[in-house]
Amino acid sequence: MRSTPPAETFPAHTPAASQIFTTVLSQGPLTRLEAARRAGLSAAAVTKAVRPLLAAGYLVESADEEARPALGRPASLVRVDGGRALFIGLKATGGELIGVLTDLCCRIRIARRISLTDRQDTAVLAVMGELVHELRTGAVDFGAPVLGLGVAVSGDVDRAEGVVRYSPFLDWRDVPLAELAAKTTGLPVTVDNDVRALTVAEQWFGAGVGLADFAVVTVGAGIGCGLVVHGRVVAGAHGVAGEIGHVTVDPAGPPCHCGNRGCVEAIAGDAAILRRIRESTGVEVADTSEALALAHRGVAGAREAYAGAGEAIGRGIATVANLFGPERVIISGEGLAGYDLFAEQIRDTFTQAAFGSAAHCDVQTRPLPFEEWARGAAATAIQSFITPDDPPPSR
Amino acid sequence: MRSTPPAETFPAHTPAASQIFTTVLSQGPLTRLEAARRAGLSAAAVTKAVRPLLAAGYLVESADEEARPALGRPASLVRVDGGRALFIGLKATGGELIGVLTDLCCRIRIARRISLTDRQDTAVLAVMGELVHELRTGAVDFGAPVLGLGVAVSGDVDRAEGVVRYSPFLDWRDVPLAELAAKTTGLPVTVDNDVRALTVAEQWFGAGVGLADFAVVTVGAGIGCGLVVHGRVVAGAHGVAGEIGHVTVDPAGPPCHCGNRGCVEAIAGDAAILRRIRESTGVEVADTSEALALAHRGVAGAREAYAGAGEAIGRGIATVANLFGPERVIISGEGLAGYDLFAEQIRDTFTQAAFGSAAHCDVQTRPLPFEEWARGAAATAIQSFITPDDPPPSR
Repeated sequence: MRSTPPAETFPAHTPAASQIFTTVLSQGPLTRLEAARRAGLSAAAVTKAVRPLLAAGYLVESADEEARPALGRPASLVRVDGGRALFIGLKATGGELIGVLTDLCCRIRIARRISLTDRQDTAVLAVMGELVHELRTGAVDFGAPVLGLGVAVSGDVDRAEGVVRYSPFLDWRDVPLAELAAKTTGLPVTVDNDVRALTVAEQWFGAGVGLADFAVVTVGAGIGCGLVVHGRVVAGAHGVAGEIGHVTVDPAGPPCHCGNRGCVEAIAGDAAILRRIRESTGVEVADTSEALALAHRGVAGAREAYAGAGEAIGRGIATVANLFGPERVIISGEGLAGYDLFAEQIRDTFTQAAFGSAAHCDVQTRPLPFEEWARGAAATAIQSFITPDDPPPSR
Repeated sequence: MRSTPPAETFPAHTPAASQIFTTVLSQGPLTRLEAARRAGLSAAAVTKAVRPLLAAGYLVESADEEARPALGRPASLVRVDGGRALFIGLKATGGELIGVLTDLCCRIRIARRISLTDRQDTAVLAVMGELVHELRTGAVDFGAPVLGLGVAVSGDVDRAEGVVRYSPFLDWRDVPLAELAAKTTGLPVTVDNDVRALTVAEQWFGAGVGLADFAVVTVGAGIGCGLVVHGRVVAGAHGVAGEIGHVTVDPAGPPCHCGNRGCVEAIAGDAAILRRIRESTGVEVADTSEALALAHRGVAGAREAYAGAGEAIGRGIATVANLFGPERVIISGEGLAGYDLFAEQIRDTFTQAAFGSAAHCDVQTRPLPFEEWARGAAATAIQSFITPDDPPPSR
């Protein structure tokens, strides 16, 4: 949903133009020929697409000095002028709001955190307004307009409608966040699930660059998953996708907040690990750092809780691999702090439960702080800015 | 893998041309304007794409008599000339080979079945050669060339390489089937997983027409799944995808041939149901029809086996919905014969285990006999014929 008219519009009105810009943004600088090859477009289509983008200053072209031939002119390279526009990305956790100001290339220029003491939507919106104001004040130094705001929230988020349908950690239901945030800030707002936003950042600038099929699995308070299939993030026909946290690994397992039992999240989410450690050791661990300390001291009950979490995550990843066969799975999230305690179980269970050649999937870890998630939110705002509002109809 | 040079080549050398042909094939007849809209292409691109296809007789254009305006010429409709070319599709089960001759619109012209008494690859290939010969003899009456052969086999099939990596029901490993079948028949051969082939048929001509995201779940000897995401069938980066049969629903459940425990297939596959009925009732049921008869007579142990199968399938479908959020799930397969015995359990477990709005997914059943699976194999051959060999690089 484009909630507020943008301050300026992007001069790319075809899917091909958005695609070539995205290719240069994530893989550039590139020669026109190479950009055409990677986007699967003709040279003529690229020429047509880049002309207005060069004229408006979103793309710039310069000689490739490194590849200067012995005779004749050097080839020209096309790249995005990052300084041309600015974007803001916000990531809301249960207790904090993390905000970044990025340029058009999604490079972080300013990063800020503010505590959230009240999770009610109106209270969170007021803090968002404050943080956006602070970042816009800082933006003045960079001499470019702020053209969009992306907000990333965990849970069931309908990006097309701009509505947070259900966010367990914020305890929100059906909050029209895009509309409310646009009223508060006056910016065009894109709202998306936080893991999907992080996945966009990984696809454009991280470990997913150039891959048609990959997954990002996040471990921490919740267990989430962003899926890229055929080069695009999966959003789900009804707004739900990537819910690896609610894959059942044991129907007789502990109850989950979703109403089922033995979901990955009910075994491997932070709260589930703490609960299991309290039950098995009798130690009233207050938070994840206490739980980690106990496990690192070798207390059996604590180690078993992490091992069980690793098995559940490994089984969840195997399910993802068995169903869509990604080239790579990137494990991230604040839960990586305890990775040494469950890495082996993740790998062993994944290898055991992956079917046939699905086991060839490259499973790797990437520590990404919450600023990277906020950067993902900025990436969704950039995506909304550069993509025509009406994508081609589904085939 | 294109194993044999085709008798003639398709005059569409761009992704746009293949796409417009596919749109007209599955949704036509259409006006050029409507075809352009549905394929997300410009009118100029459509004009350029259809010209050689009309010239070669693959497309025909005729006046839309129904929409004749009061004044002026009626609009022209573009449609595929089904009679222009013929294709053969084969589906191999453990005990039978099912073959169809179809036209270019994938309409079945002749259907045949031959028993397989020996599952060894050389023996199956000899029977395939026989069946193809018989269908080609029949093809003479239709006055069009047979331009391709599609073979659908259950298990881990690498379509790009034309190799059956592992087929449990045939007990094959690493059989280069495309190459062998091409040698035997002299036709260009496309080999694919049988459920993916059926999914192509549903996408083009069945309950998936016009949907960008849907799944086909097949129940019977095995439990399979074909996924369409962003309008394309998911093949998996390593050749494995859609393995819903190996989603774990109970880690303490019965052992599965894949080496794990409590997979959907180990609970809901035909052999698993028979085993459970034998164990709980003591009746030595020999096959599925005896098992069904026992359950339909109300024998508790038999009814429970089917109920348990329904729960496992429902949980598997919920996992697919939670991860991909398809618009529709189509349940098919020979196991539908017992659908009255587990339909309620599938629906209840799905509804319970689906996360949030993933439960809005439209779950429906469609009885599709094995001839439809063979038709799916013919559809993959048509797909290979009309699609350029080198798809655009992954982005």
